[in-house]
Amino acid sequence: MTTKVLPLLEPETVVPCCPPLSERPLTAEEAERTAVMFKALGDPVRLRLFSLVASHEGGEACVCDISDVGVSQPTVSHHLKKLREAGLLSSERRGTWVYYRVEPSVLAAMGQLLTRAAGA
Amino acid sequence: MTTKVLPLLEPETVVPCCPPLSERPLTAEEAERTAVMFKALGDPVRLRLFSLVASHEGGEACVCDISDVGVSQPTVSHHLKKLREAGLLSSERRGTWVYYRVEPSVLAAMGQLLTRAAGA
Repeated sequence: MTTKVLPLLEPETVVPCCPPLSERPLTAEEAERTAVMFKALGDPVRLRLFSLVASHEGGEACVCDISDVGVSQPTVSHHLKKLREAGLLSSERRGTWVYYRVEPSVLAAMGQLLTRAAGA
Repeated sequence: MTTKVLPLLEPETVVPCCPPLSERPLTAEEAERTAVMFKALGDPVRLRLFSLVASHEGGEACVCDISDVGVSQPTVSHHLKKLREAGLLSSERRGTWVYYRVEPSVLAAMGQLLTRAAGA
């Protein structure tokens, strides 16, 4: 039996991919990966929930902190899970609640992708 | 008969809205407006086309310049139109072709929205 050593993933090093959009066209594979993140923010309720987590005290929030977006708690949970699956939020269970936190490195890379393109 | 003077829109001043995501939650109205742009980039083919325009010589491209994304020319036109409707590209007809160009101010604002949130 052989053993494979899997690399440790440091959260700080998780960047989504891709050069600035103005540098060269994305490959099909890069576009697939990156579109997932844009799509996750392409829903008004999800975008609003995302901004609620991003602006919440301490940079994290649980469903219990979010109640005024006009959708039910299960729907909030569903959207937060989608944002996590897209790599935009990380989550941690503490007792009854799952706490969500913005993934700074992923966001920074997305921001850079757009900002540099604009400056080109 | 009365005459209304319509304001001139300077492309440089068209910014999508919104403070950095970490500053305060988006309102429902801000989220509606901004999600449209993220959604437009949330499709792999559209994102790839967008990067093709952004990285094309002179910062602009027409359908005639884009042929290797694996979809038909009418489909390319359709996606470019969607990107324009979302405010991400501007367009200008010259003879037979419509030329598309990245809207730098909109992109910069989107980038800032994400980058500042990440630094918070």
